[in-house]
Amino acid sequence: MPAPLGLIAGLGDLPVAIAENAVATGQGVHVLRLKGFEEPRLADFPGSVVGLGEIGAVISRLRAAGCEDLVFAGIVKRPNFSDLKLDLKGAALLPKVLSEARKGDDALLRVLVSEFEKSGFNVIGSDQAHANLLAPAGLIAGAPPSEMSLGDMLVAARVAAASGALDIGQACVVCDGLVLAVEAQEGTDEMLRRCAALPEAIRGREGARRGVLVKRPKPEQERRIDLPTTGVSTVELAAAAGLAGIGIEAGGALMLNRPAMMDTAERLGLFLYGFKPELGLDR
Amino acid sequence: MPAPLGLIAGLGDLPVAIAENAVATGQGVHVLRLKGFEEPRLADFPGSVVGLGEIGAVISRLRAAGCEDLVFAGIVKRPNFSDLKLDLKGAALLPKVLSEARKGDDALLRVLVSEFEKSGFNVIGSDQAHANLLAPAGLIAGAPPSEMSLGDMLVAARVAAASGALDIGQACVVCDGLVLAVEAQEGTDEMLRRCAALPEAIRGREGARRGVLVKRPKPEQERRIDLPTTGVSTVELAAAAGLAGIGIEAGGALMLNRPAMMDTAERLGLFLYGFKPELGLDR
Repeated sequence: MPAPLGLIAGLGDLPVAIAENAVATGQGVHVLRLKGFEEPRLADFPGSVVGLGEIGAVISRLRAAGCEDLVFAGIVKRPNFSDLKLDLKGAALLPKVLSEARKGDDALLRVLVSEFEKSGFNVIGSDQAHANLLAPAGLIAGAPPSEMSLGDMLVAARVAAASGALDIGQACVVCDGLVLAVEAQEGTDEMLRRCAALPEAIRGREGARRGVLVKRPKPEQERRIDLPTTGVSTVELAAAAGLAGIGIEAGGALMLNRPAMMDTAERLGLFLYGFKPELGLDR
Repeated sequence: MPAPLGLIAGLGDLPVAIAENAVATGQGVHVLRLKGFEEPRLADFPGSVVGLGEIGAVISRLRAAGCEDLVFAGIVKRPNFSDLKLDLKGAALLPKVLSEARKGDDALLRVLVSEFEKSGFNVIGSDQAHANLLAPAGLIAGAPPSEMSLGDMLVAARVAAASGALDIGQACVVCDGLVLAVEAQEGTDEMLRRCAALPEAIRGREGARRGVLVKRPKPEQERRIDLPTTGVSTVELAAAAGLAGIGIEAGGALMLNRPAMMDTAERLGLFLYGFKPELGLDR
């Protein structure tokens, strides 16, 4: 029997898709749901709930379950570090976590990956844990983007690359060359809701869609954690903001439930496009 | 008698302060309020209302009023260019405006400045039209920023510089090294309201303030138009977001009603700090 996949899980569709896939392929899964971010749909998988500061407990439970490969997936908000319940291992790691946390999300995540690797686990990305999650290259759904949309996608790819390089975020929206919104800690969904509230003069609408959402990983991102993720709700919110389509870095961002995303995009009249990873890196 | 100041005005406190100052200094003012953005407090000054596309009318009215110096001030949202009522001059300028508008706000504004200069006016900045509007250097109000706040101000100054270089916007919020929000088309007030809605774990609160709002001009900004502006409401919204203070580029951003801003900051426990223009340009 293969070693079950270790899954340290937050909220959302991604950890559910990974857990279901691990069961479907026969590998099996051991799910540690993080306290405060317990995804209900994961409750029936083998595993348990652990606190964010209980690093020692996480390691011993994964070892007891015989896990070798380990994946982090799902949404977890930064905790208030001073409120965390820590076990011995968590307490030993805290000073490093605190100092790296000040450098941004990515630095913080690197500390965790490194700690689990030192403990003998093989940390893999969501894309390795579940084939077919990564966006493919080229047109994925909808009509081919217009010349104007291709221009917006280029500008947005540039802005998202610069924004990622500064560890700000992984997404932005550009319409007719104008940067409508840049994602930081509020997340992509909130950013899209904000675009829908902008004056109609500077954005598109149903029937006259314009503007593009771009999602791409940070250039120096720890790709085994926190790859940018899109799903059906991303398509719906982009539609509500009047956008013409969504550009997703091919091989660099995840599409959850791709068939449903494609159906939604076709129905609402948006394109989904996997742009080449080098787009917008020319400055 | 000196030539009256020509004021092309949108909404907000800035054009009102400039108009009042021009009257107080004895220069006098001729105010052209822009249709759709008519500031009510400017209704009693000499002048009239003009449409955004009526460039010819603007020029002839300013000439008739004997204006030489011309200032643009106040908030105007991008119009839907296809809905604009254009006079001959406006129609002649439209193709250039449309092509530059796709490059961002700044490129769009440069076209307008250049057109008015070609027509013989001397376009000046709000800071030239009204001395004492620009932020001074050093501590302006409140207790000196802590080491942590100085660190946040540095990161925010870097992010705002990069964001400005891409013509995204002029402001951002950083707390404990983490970029909470970056301003684009929603404006600073909306960005601060969004910060107040973020989880308490990653931001400050009354009694335990942390995080800094930074406002600075874009590095290659047409400084005669659209200098970043702060006012009493900026201080109030920053306080509601739990921030420790506001960093304003000294000599590069405007403070409207500075005494009231300082009072508000002291009362709510925030610092106001004028940082040197070179801060954060080191990468």
